[in-house]
Amino acid sequence: MDYYSGYIGNLIEELSVLPGIGPKTAARLAFHILDMPKEQVERLSKALVEAKENIHYCKHCFTLTDQDECPICRDAKRDHKTIMVVETVRDMAAYEKVGEYKGVYHVLHGAINPMAGIGQNDIKLKELFQRLKDDVDEVIIATNSSVEGEATAMYISKVIKPLDIKVSRIASGVPVGGDLEYIDNVTLLRALEGRVEI
Amino acid sequence: MDYYSGYIGNLIEELSVLPGIGPKTAARLAFHILDMPKEQVERLSKALVEAKENIHYCKHCFTLTDQDECPICRDAKRDHKTIMVVETVRDMAAYEKVGEYKGVYHVLHGAINPMAGIGQNDIKLKELFQRLKDDVDEVIIATNSSVEGEATAMYISKVIKPLDIKVSRIASGVPVGGDLEYIDNVTLLRALEGRVEI
Repeated sequence: MDYYSGYIGNLIEELSVLPGIGPKTAARLAFHILDMPKEQVERLSKALVEAKENIHYCKHCFTLTDQDECPICRDAKRDHKTIMVVETVRDMAAYEKVGEYKGVYHVLHGAINPMAGIGQNDIKLKELFQRLKDDVDEVIIATNSSVEGEATAMYISKVIKPLDIKVSRIASGVPVGGDLEYIDNVTLLRALEGRVEI
Repeated sequence: MDYYSGYIGNLIEELSVLPGIGPKTAARLAFHILDMPKEQVERLSKALVEAKENIHYCKHCFTLTDQDECPICRDAKRDHKTIMVVETVRDMAAYEKVGEYKGVYHVLHGAINPMAGIGQNDIKLKELFQRLKDDVDEVIIATNSSVEGEATAMYISKVIKPLDIKVSRIASGVPVGGDLEYIDNVTLLRALEGRVEI
């Protein structure tokens, strides 16, 4: 693309590394950015570097934070004896948006996936088991309902069960508002297996 | 989203202003950026500001360039007596990718759109008519085949016709490889009207 100036080509190239952004979208974004007010471009540029420089893992739960401890781990009103294990910070945010959960979290930053070469030492599992040495009542496993998420859940429950700590798994079934007709067979089976008396 | 650190929230907010990027995509991008190597984030951040600082309009054709004249306007081998009028820099890039066109361009940066309050003075039309005072043989109008693009083409041809300069419009019809069955009625009608003897 030598008919674009080097600066535009460079910007398009740097934007293309972002997930879900191919060369065409990157070009669209680049031209939009060139149309934005200078101050806004500078704010975006600064936000990138500042976030990268100041954000690191919470020392307890491994979520992303700019302090030593994240606001949830620091909050004395939360139930620190209940730990919800999630794969990503976004999964944790999803539960925080609901607002009902009062315990704390543990972010694994992935799931066991032998096909992709991700073993139990590549995610924050050691750190989870370390936390169980403190006073913990229950570990709620909220990994995804994918093959990798299920395998990780199985592994965690196997390790924790002998420790006399309650282990639970979030329910799997038909989503609220979901139409049975369009739900896959495995989910339908899970929903049947997990039926509760009413 | 106060459970994210201020730096992450800020980054998500700044990313959300980009076209086609809603809050969810912005969050996905932000977390990806936090996972990228520091040097790469700094390169992206720098590319943004550098592009914005160094890019401006070519003084002849109003494409984006980091020099006084763009490479095409500077190129003595191009036919400077043929001007192709396009709406955006990306439209110009699309024709440059084909590589067959040997004339120069004029980028309008939009099309006449009274509904959106864009009149003939809001796009680079005055500047186009100014260029016609030099020695120009033909103006090829390659605005989009939308209502706004057609209205702009009509307006330009009306102004230029009395000047004794040839005005042409790129052909409208069935795209190459297009299946007649799936082509809309207006395009089919245009293709019929624009039929050429073989």
